[in-house]
Amino acid sequence: MNIRLAKGSSQPLYIQLFEQLKELIEQGILPEDYKLPTIRELGRELNVNNITVVNAYKLLEDHKLIYKKVGSGSYVLPIEENLIINNAVSNEDDRQEYDYNTEEGYIDFATASPDPRLFPMTDFKKAINDVIERDGGNAFMYHDSRGYLPLRSSIADYLSKKEIEVGPEDVYIISGAQQGIDIIAKALLTNGDYVFVESPTYTGAAAVFKSRGARIVEIPLQSDGPDMNELEKLLQVIKPKFMYTMPNFQNPTGCSYSERKKKHLLLLCKKYKLLIVEDDYSGDLSYKEKPATPLKSYDNADSVIYIKSFSKIFMPGLRVAFLIIPEPIKKMIESAKYMTDISTSGFMQRVLDLYLNRNILDEHIRYMKKEYGLRYFEAVRAAKKYLRGALFSQPYGGLNLWIRLPEGIDSSKLYERCKKNMVLITPGTVFLKGEEGEQHMRISFSGVDVLDITKGIAIVGNTIEEMKKESRIGGA
Amino acid sequence: MNIRLAKGSSQPLYIQLFEQLKELIEQGILPEDYKLPTIRELGRELNVNNITVVNAYKLLEDHKLIYKKVGSGSYVLPIEENLIINNAVSNEDDRQEYDYNTEEGYIDFATASPDPRLFPMTDFKKAINDVIERDGGNAFMYHDSRGYLPLRSSIADYLSKKEIEVGPEDVYIISGAQQGIDIIAKALLTNGDYVFVESPTYTGAAAVFKSRGARIVEIPLQSDGPDMNELEKLLQVIKPKFMYTMPNFQNPTGCSYSERKKKHLLLLCKKYKLLIVEDDYSGDLSYKEKPATPLKSYDNADSVIYIKSFSKIFMPGLRVAFLIIPEPIKKMIESAKYMTDISTSGFMQRVLDLYLNRNILDEHIRYMKKEYGLRYFEAVRAAKKYLRGALFSQPYGGLNLWIRLPEGIDSSKLYERCKKNMVLITPGTVFLKGEEGEQHMRISFSGVDVLDITKGIAIVGNTIEEMKKESRIGGA
Repeated sequence: MNIRLAKGSSQPLYIQLFEQLKELIEQGILPEDYKLPTIRELGRELNVNNITVVNAYKLLEDHKLIYKKVGSGSYVLPIEENLIINNAVSNEDDRQEYDYNTEEGYIDFATASPDPRLFPMTDFKKAINDVIERDGGNAFMYHDSRGYLPLRSSIADYLSKKEIEVGPEDVYIISGAQQGIDIIAKALLTNGDYVFVESPTYTGAAAVFKSRGARIVEIPLQSDGPDMNELEKLLQVIKPKFMYTMPNFQNPTGCSYSERKKKHLLLLCKKYKLLIVEDDYSGDLSYKEKPATPLKSYDNADSVIYIKSFSKIFMPGLRVAFLIIPEPIKKMIESAKYMTDISTSGFMQRVLDLYLNRNILDEHIRYMKKEYGLRYFEAVRAAKKYLRGALFSQPYGGLNLWIRLPEGIDSSKLYERCKKNMVLITPGTVFLKGEEGEQHMRISFSGVDVLDITKGIAIVGNTIEEMKKESRIGGA
Repeated sequence: MNIRLAKGSSQPLYIQLFEQLKELIEQGILPEDYKLPTIRELGRELNVNNITVVNAYKLLEDHKLIYKKVGSGSYVLPIEENLIINNAVSNEDDRQEYDYNTEEGYIDFATASPDPRLFPMTDFKKAINDVIERDGGNAFMYHDSRGYLPLRSSIADYLSKKEIEVGPEDVYIISGAQQGIDIIAKALLTNGDYVFVESPTYTGAAAVFKSRGARIVEIPLQSDGPDMNELEKLLQVIKPKFMYTMPNFQNPTGCSYSERKKKHLLLLCKKYKLLIVEDDYSGDLSYKEKPATPLKSYDNADSVIYIKSFSKIFMPGLRVAFLIIPEPIKKMIESAKYMTDISTSGFMQRVLDLYLNRNILDEHIRYMKKEYGLRYFEAVRAAKKYLRGALFSQPYGGLNLWIRLPEGIDSSKLYERCKKNMVLITPGTVFLKGEEGEQHMRISFSGVDVLDITKGIAIVGNTIEEMKKESRIGGA
């Protein structure tokens, strides 16, 4: 292996080793299931202490890049399996290091909101004033229901970087992703229509479909995407108007579809004339080197309506998002948008357009990814440490951890208890009926700063331990 | 009569006389049907030339403040009858004074848009920057679905000036009036429900109700409001979910409900448990001294949902409006709003709040009323002059004239012909099916400046005359 460690560097040797191995794995130079050298072999080869290699391998394991086989050694983890369920191990000694019942208000893991301190207010203020200066009152007129044409062009250009090839005529501006869901429902659904959704799914979407009188059919999610057998069985007997999906960093599970399942899904689209709605609400927020690939980028048959919001990567207060609309339904979408609110604020559209053209957005997304990445890794670290007996997947992206609670802990009771301890979580019952709901909670880490993440998850862990004890006493 | 004319003033004597008489009439000092002095009597009394009195009376008549009885003299016109149908008389000699087929683009009477040159950009820019300075990134977070609380309070205060007594808890912020209609439909309508609307009505509302699967029942409009007999007959056999109304300066007719009918309607609400949706889209734009009274201000039984937009009186690009919601349906409205777009831009809400607190808005409305008033009076003048044989009411407010075309002129053909002559009108067929639609056109004057109003209406008049001639030749 081509590894060079700089012994005089300020960066510890094990970090250097970790980073270089990480790159070799992510570039595919070390392929999936490749057996790594043993600790001793590599220590000798690099002329470093064994503990350096142990620490580097430990970090790789924590980052879900390698896995251990007992008595056999360490192997490169296949990408598809990055999302396997992990058994969280807790170190009880650490759980008391934070005292809770803070007076400063709640630690809020319930809202998947960005942190306002991360917003680029200086650049944004400048863009606002530049637009007022340039366009005057025209910026505040009614705008085309489809959106402000220069912005539609800028977005088309922007998308070509993500390998989505569309023209301005395919891009429709909307006032946030939620409105996109509402408009699609208005354009396509009438009473009694079928809609397929992932199970669990974003409740704000399901509510819209139900409000149009649609019948919801739930497709079970596996760690790498929908259960394709179940989906195809259903498609053989039911013709849904569309299937609503979040193929990357799904809400609430954090699950991403494997590349294989993405392609498989598009084959089913052709076979059954299935229309997909892809809600790419946080696809930009990948904490691996490799960005997440939108389903839309594989779509060569106009099978996918693509919804993209700037709320998570920029600012929710912008209230600007966009749709990419397949040709046959453009007219219907335009008239549904008009009925909904005539047009999205032309002023905000112009400001965003300026932003895109100045390439400030990409720079800002890199910054957000870095900041949210720190929070993500801290949330994972804290969950492993403090949530004894809980199970969770590591999405390496997005805004949420979806955590299976230890046996016997009900998420709705845990929610109440944590709230008393000034920590807000989302109980799984919000997303799933019955036992499955009671067994899960969602932790949204994006709006909480790193110290509070540790503190908050420690509180949740302590609360769980208290509940366990009480149930042992109660059961005795 | 207590009239004093200043002979040395720069203002012509007949204008002074007109204004003072206008005030006496509007204050009710000269009551309805009061017989004015004859020309000679008043000329002698004021020691002015008869022609001064003739001109002043002419202006009063043009402003629909007095009416003439042949051989009897001039009388104060009862307010209720301000809206009677007028026979437009044209002076053929003037019709050629404008040449058309201008190269500069269309004269657009089809869009009821404000003129962006009237927007208060300097004040607005300041308010924007003050909000960014004060609130930073928090201004761009998600906001409460019901709206930003300080704005809800400011609006409640603002409404008390209009004799609508509500608290902040009754005010719900929305992204424009169209969204209000959409949200109300989402909260209240399911497949097969009945909705009553005025006939003709705003098509953008009817489309939303139909999209929810509602059955639309049309209530004929008279010059002073709905046909109350017809309405009550229908209420005896049908229970609608609500009746959608525009009680002041109705779109497209310009008609306002008489105070009597407003009160009558609220009695029917109690008797039949009827819920009213009042869309007050341009009630502030009264070109008489007396402001238009919202139906909501008479509502003491929570019978009226009130929708108010800032698009017409401020800037459409603001995309902020509000609802006043009766207690029993608040929860449903809140959840429908969440489904629609989560929340309205908190940033724009904060800017508008600053505006309301600085009392800049009222000042701006006064300015808009003055500017639009000039356009209104010019549109009426030009219509009387150039549209021979057309009939129209004088709404003294709002943004539109609703004009009945001379016998034999089809509005859809007129629309096509005018478009070729670079003038856009809205044919009545957009609002009404069959003959009634063909017989009317809507002229929206708010977005066109005074010179172009005269020019544009002259072109419409000429086009009508051409069509008349052709049909005479064709018929010969």
